[in-house]
Amino acid sequence: MELLVVKDKCIDYDGSAIQSHWAYRNFGILGNSIVVFRGGCDVNVEEMIDIEDLRQNKEIKSDDMVHYIVEVFDFPNVLLASALQKLFIARLCEVLGEYGVKTSRKGDDIYVHGRKLSISIATVSPVSVKMHIGINVEIKGIPEGVDAIGLKELGIIDIEGFMEKTGKALVEEFIKVKKDSMKVRWAQ
Amino acid sequence: MELLVVKDKCIDYDGSAIQSHWAYRNFGILGNSIVVFRGGCDVNVEEMIDIEDLRQNKEIKSDDMVHYIVEVFDFPNVLLASALQKLFIARLCEVLGEYGVKTSRKGDDIYVHGRKLSISIATVSPVSVKMHIGINVEIKGIPEGVDAIGLKELGIIDIEGFMEKTGKALVEEFIKVKKDSMKVRWAQ
Amino acid sequence: MELLVVKDKCIDYDGSAIQSHWAYRNFGILGNSIVVFRGGCDVNVEEMIDIEDLRQNKEIKSDDMVHYIVEVFDFPNVLLASALQKLFIARLCEVLGEYGVKTSRKGDDIYVHGRKLSISIATVSPVSVKMHIGINVEIKGIPEGVDAIGLKELGIIDIEGFMEKTGKALVEEFIKVKKDSMKVRWAQ
Amino acid sequence: MELLVVKDKCIDYDGSAIQSHWAYRNFGILGNSIVVFRGGCDVNVEEMIDIEDLRQNKEIKSDDMVHYIVEVFDFPNVLLASALQKLFIARLCEVLGEYGVKTSRKGDDIYVHGRKLSISIATVSPVSVKMHIGINVEIKGIPEGVDAIGLKELGIIDIEGFMEKTGKALVEEFIKVKKDSMKVRWAQ
Amino acid sequence: MELLVVKDKCIDYDGSAIQSHWAYRNFGILGNSIVVFRGGCDVNVEEMIDIEDLRQNKEIKSDDMVHYIVEVFDFPNVLLASALQKLFIARLCEVLGEYGVKTSRKGDDIYVHGRKLSISIATVSPVSVKMHIGINVEIKGIPEGVDAIGLKELGIIDIEGFMEKTGKALVEEFIKVKKDSMKVRWAQ
Amino acid sequence: MELLVVKDKCIDYDGSAIQSHWAYRNFGILGNSIVVFRGGCDVNVEEMIDIEDLRQNKEIKSDDMVHYIVEVFDFPNVLLASALQKLFIARLCEVLGEYGVKTSRKGDDIYVHGRKLSISIATVSPVSVKMHIGINVEIKGIPEGVDAIGLKELGIIDIEGFMEKTGKALVEEFIKVKKDSMKVRWAQ
Repeated sequence: MELLVVKDKCIDYDGSAIQSHWAYRNFGILGNSIVVFRGGCDVNVEEMIDIEDLRQNKEIKSDDMVHYIVEVFDFPNVLLASALQKLFIARLCEVLGEYGVKTSRKGDDIYVHGRKLSISIATVSPVSVKMHIGINVEIKGIPEGVDAIGLKELGIIDIEGFMEKTGKALVEEFIKVKKDSMKVRWAQ
Repeated sequence: MELLVVKDKCIDYDGSAIQSHWAYRNFGILGNSIVVFRGGCDVNVEEMIDIEDLRQNKEIKSDDMVHYIVEVFDFPNVLLASALQKLFIARLCEVLGEYGVKTSRKGDDIYVHGRKLSISIATVSPVSVKMHIGINVEIKGIPEGVDAIGLKELGIIDIEGFMEKTGKALVEEFIKVKKDSMKVRWAQ
Repeated sequence: MELLVVKDKCIDYDGSAIQSHWAYRNFGILGNSIVVFRGGCDVNVEEMIDIEDLRQNKEIKSDDMVHYIVEVFDFPNVLLASALQKLFIARLCEVLGEYGVKTSRKGDDIYVHGRKLSISIATVSPVSVKMHIGINVEIKGIPEGVDAIGLKELGIIDIEGFMEKTGKALVEEFIKVKKDSMKVRWAQ
Repeated sequence: MELLVVKDKCIDYDGSAIQSHWAYRNFGILGNSIVVFRGGCDVNVEEMIDIEDLRQNKEIKSDDMVHYIVEVFDFPNVLLASALQKLFIARLCEVLGEYGVKTSRKGDDIYVHGRKLSISIATVSPVSVKMHIGINVEIKGIPEGVDAIGLKELGIIDIEGFMEKTGKALVEEFIKVKKDSMKVRWAQ
Repeated sequence: MELLVVKDKCIDYDGSAIQSHWAYRNFGILGNSIVVFRGGCDVNVEEMIDIEDLRQNKEIKSDDMVHYIVEVFDFPNVLLASALQKLFIARLCEVLGEYGVKTSRKGDDIYVHGRKLSISIATVSPVSVKMHIGINVEIKGIPEGVDAIGLKELGIIDIEGFMEKTGKALVEEFIKVKKDSMKVRWAQ
Repeated sequence: MELLVVKDKCIDYDGSAIQSHWAYRNFGILGNSIVVFRGGCDVNVEEMIDIEDLRQNKEIKSDDMVHYIVEVFDFPNVLLASALQKLFIARLCEVLGEYGVKTSRKGDDIYVHGRKLSISIATVSPVSVKMHIGINVEIKGIPEGVDAIGLKELGIIDIEGFMEKTGKALVEEFIKVKKDSMKVRWAQ
């Protein structure tokens, strides 16, 4: 699994990055990958993946987020997508713990002091598992009614360092998952 | 996913519970399940799933453990098995955090103060994902050279309460994973 | 598998209900489901699933039908879709037998006295098996050249009762299929 | 799908025919197949597939049965196995109807006048869907407590004719299922 | 697997034939198939499958080619698609060898004297493996910078004969692949 | 995909290397791999994979062969196993062509001057595709009635060089297959 941390420019997330082969089309990265970048978030309705959000006409917006786009080609199955997503969120919480931030995970959401730090969606394309995770840097441009919190408020100022550290942590987690899956004999 | 916490008797884990349909054969539980029980652990070589352990002639032993046997029929894939296992281990760490125990997770291992609290294996049968997690209650009968720690040493005395609480937490985690997998539209 | 029998309003079937997550988008039903409703039928060409119909420029029309929309997330495979469809059609014939109606099944078509009572299609979306079954209530608005018959002509007047009874029968059949699939050990 | 109706000899069913490639090993039939034969039935415990039977120490016995061994290589999935089995049982009921026999199907069991005419099991091997259906010819050698009925009692005397007719009906049903699965476009 | 060699007319390849069920929609061929035809080649950008080509704004053009459109419904997996494609290309090289043409295969490209004879792409639809192979008849209308060669230059004048011979060779190869896949027992 | 060419010792092939994780158990190689080694060949009946051979009581024997054991974890499917095997055989023929040896491939068999150079089998374990290819070095110990030929007779004397060259060629072929499978968008 390849890691790309985009540092030289901002990329806004409008939802289209959830499509298959986004990393290959845009960065020439072939195969399993995590691309980490920073930018605004404003998801077009036609790109919304969570049907619950669609049903509730939710807005998915933030002015400044760290984004993770994950693609795994091994097997396009929604249960795998959803399990991997929760694991990645749990891993991010562990890394936040290393920063001294005490988090509370509810499925694929990260909360700090009861305030929402992240958004996430996981699904499949016909050829891959795809995932987006977004973590607020600052709580600007967030839809009303959402009690949000951002990295800066938590004292995490070196955003590029955070992007590097968390990107590596997720890639290492996936590699561990993958390796372990090949070292076990099957059971009767 | 059904939860069974066995309280009325001890069951030793010899590795055979990793076989498919163990919960159905022994407890009549049909479908996805987690069975939590307490007992010794002494895995027969012929039941060892981790080929790394086999290659190193490792012993897998403990006199008193809480055991979790998980079976998921949705889709027998080793990557799903391995991802779900890490997620369950991360969830157990979160619950231990609620007990005030600070853990460190390395893949599918739980450490406290650098000492090993748990063992785990995840694989597939031809019809299901299968998983075993074992958590030391007391560090008796553990192979030499393993620096282990147990629940009692960590101040967790009500083992049945712990079995209930963690069993429920894992079942809820799986249900969340499953539900989320069905509420997302697929991506192009 | 959840059953919803829509009684308080008519819903026309234009083919769009064959898309994935239709039940979740429209009724908030998550997971495997059968939605039974009553209304006209006029399938847009761009929604036609049966390529044979497309090739022959067939019209799929009826003014009054009982519709069943089935979605099964377990495993999106066309052979499963097609087998499950034939089984559901056979089950509907059995229920019609309980009403005293003698049917003849040809694959996924139900005939009574050589006249066509039903239409049906089964396919996959990238995440699910999807199926539509339509049973004529009255033979109005049916394309010329089709020798059709309807429930009313067969003496089945209580259409809501029929919707309930058949909906339940299909759900029970699926639950039996599912349960049996998990109580058998695999063969060498 | 190839059909073989064995007429020149009796073959007893001891459960071993449920293993993969049985038709190829014994008759050189490559690929999807239904083999129909006549003989006794006495299933060894170690060949029992239904874990419910194993749990209840059931005997599976009969002195004279028509047996159907089905193998489908397309996709070894237990839900497909179970759905296809129920469809085949429903088809057999339809053929029995053509003989003037009124049946009642409960999942994979055929009853006539509340008495059990058949046994069946469906599962997977690692490479195929496998199924056994057995229909009593005469009710001899059947375990005590089972209220059984046989073909002869139902007036079906020409057993070879019945084997031919039903074998063909099942093969045609499968071919219809398969063909239909390839003529439908996928849904969004 | 059915073979259709279209001889009575030219068909230009614009990329749309890569869509699922093309053979069924256009020729009524149900199931696995290879359709061989002759015509120009000018692939619309929106039909381009190879993202590398898209990224490089490549033109895929030729005035006169023999085209092969392959569809395999058995299992829509990209690794199978890619492996089967390379095997088919290798088989075409073998047949060209029978014509006395010495080829060099690089993955899915055929070269003769270092000049490019063919183009090819393999992918999946949600229901099938799809493949296009195009072999230059004459090197007219080919994008600048591509050093191409055609069948005529290689002394292969009877293009219809070549279409027949190669079409049969590919079908026979697939049938061999398929048959062999069903005559092997699984390994522990 | 990792390549191991065993040069420091002979390993006889008795068929057991076809089992899953053989490379990991014996050489610690995790994941997709090709192990090339030299030694005798005498396949135990209980390890025979080709049921045709079993049915004909064939002996599979040779005193001196180059062996290739391939394992691919991506997707345990028999059609992929069989397609990949034919591709690897075709690739070996191409490499033999570079040695100046003119071969004739029939499915998974290599012939030179009508004499058999190789044996091969491809199947699945419950977690992987597995393949064995054996190429005669000298035609000693080969079953009567088999008109065989060996590498030495073809002028290939540097067997270790041949093992290196062909091992690399197969690994490169697989890597190409894999890479191409991830650079194509899916088709409608």
